[in-house]
Order: sequence, then structure tokens, then C-alpha cells
Amino acid sequence: MTKSVNSEEFQKYLHEQIPLSKAMELSVKSLSLDEVVLGAAFTANRNHKGTVFGGSLAAISTLSCWSLIYMKLSQVSGSYEIVVTQSNISYKRPVKEEIKAICRSNQQDSWDFLFSSLQKKGKGRIKLEAYIGNPDQPSVYFEGTFAVLRQER
Amino acid sequence: MTKSVNSEEFQKYLHEQIPLSKAMELSVKSLSLDEVVLGAAFTANRNHKGTVFGGSLAAISTLSCWSLIYMKLSQVSGSYEIVVTQSNISYKRPVKEEIKAICRSNQQDSWDFLFSSLQKKGKGRIKLEAYIGNPDQPSVYFEGTFAVLRQER
Repeated sequence: MTKSVNSEEFQKYLHEQIPLSKAMELSVKSLSLDEVVLGAAFTANRNHKGTVFGGSLAAISTLSCWSLIYMKLSQVSGSYEIVVTQSNISYKRPVKEEIKAICRSNQQDSWDFLFSSLQKKGKGRIKLEAYIGNPDQPSVYFEGTFAVLRQER
Repeated sequence: MTKSVNSEEFQKYLHEQIPLSKAMELSVKSLSLDEVVLGAAFTANRNHKGTVFGGSLAAISTLSCWSLIYMKLSQVSGSYEIVVTQSNISYKRPVKEEIKAICRSNQQDSWDFLFSSLQKKGKGRIKLEAYIGNPDQPSVYFEGTFAVLRQER
């Protein structure tokens, strides 16, 4: 059984489940099976240099990938836990405006591998990328590995 | 000219300069030239699974290293900007209690290299490690590269 997820409901879900996302004034800009775009207010995430705090950039990048996995799993039956296990982040240039983090689903192979592993073993892993800012010249580049575990009911 | 920095003042400084650190209920547990220990309340940083949100763990790890560099630079003349440029983080096990992030100054060579570079070129880099939890079996292991730039007055 699959469930449909809309941006507004999902934003409310994130704010309820992860209080810090509310403090970050995180918003769900767009949500689909191909791409998740999360936003966050500049002021709530600024630092003393008038740029965005690195911790906020790491948090929103992680959440954008987490959210895309959540979206994909909403299309299959069962309940799953999604946990980040490892990540690398490159802060290439300062972010001086509202944050926009994008995670795109661009590797069908890795999703096939994840779903096949979930079906066989009830668990699996996937590596995803996210970036902040202009796609051609991202301000922040993030790569994270996430573990997915099927929950027994 | 060097300046002395105490935990209470430094905590206030962080809360003022980085609003999200206040939302995280970040506290400065101890502060010296050898080690910085930062804490953060569990509730403000929890997620829906009853563990600490990965974004909070990344943020506090980054800040612990940033703070140790700030402490070291307080011992030399001049004003400096400290920016994280790259980091890797391994989430080894879930954190289910108040967060404690530790950054230790264990490589004198790299500090000597940084200070020598600052003196010669007005800028430099340093790689630092931090961990969360038990030192022997950390729940989170963080490694970050930071750029330091001397500010012209």
C-alpha cells in the first residue's frame, strides 16, 4: 500500500518529529519522487559573519536526502527506519541568503539495489548527494550514506 | 596581545553570534587550550526515534573544533576569521542522552604549521577531530578542515 505525501503535511511532520527543524524555520519547497527541495530562513541560521552557520548547512543537506528516501519508501508497503550513517560535506563558498537544499534522485541502479535488499533482508543502504545553491556551482556539496531498516509491526 | 576566555562568556558569545546554538541549548562544558567540551540538551535535539538528530550532531561537532581554534587564536595578536571548509562524519551508534562533543588538541605539529602560515601569509588551514560520547567507543566521529584568515583592521 502506497501513501501520498504533500509538502505541507511533510513540513508539519518534520517540525513535529525534529524540533530543531522548526527552530531552523525549515520549509519544504517541493517534494516528489525525483527531487526534494528544502528551504530555511537566513536569519534563523545565520552566524556572526553574516553567512549561514555550517551546522545548519549540514543539517538541511542531511534532511533533504533523508526526505527523498522517505518519499521513495512511501511507495512501497511496510514501515521503515532511515538513519544517516556517514557523510562528507564540502563548503565551497559562503551562503548569504535563504538556504535551498536539493537532493535529486539520479541513480536508478542504487534505488533498485536498495529495494531488492529491503525485500531480501529487510535492510539496505543508499548513498545520495545534495547541494545548496546554484546547481552549476553549488555553495555546498554533500554526500551521505543512509541505512534503511524495515520495522517489524 | 592575548585575551583570556571563560566558559560562561564564550557560551554567551556563541548564543549571540549563532542563534541556532541557543535553539540547540548548547552549553560550554569546559574550555581550555587543550580541549573544548560542548554540551547540548537531549530534548531540543531529539528526533522522532528518541535519539539525537544527525544535524545536531554535525553542528555541535563542527562547533567544538571551531571553538578550539578560537581558543588557540585568542593567544596570539590579531583578529581572525575561522571557517569550516570540509568535513566527514561517521554516525557509529545512536545518541540517546545529552550530547557531549569533545575536540582535543593533540597534534602540536599542525598548530605550529597553522601559526607559521598565519605569520607568513595571513592565512592557513588545520584539520581537527572531534567525537561524541565515550572516548574509547565514540558514538560519532568527526573530522573537519578549517581555514583561518587574518582580518585586516
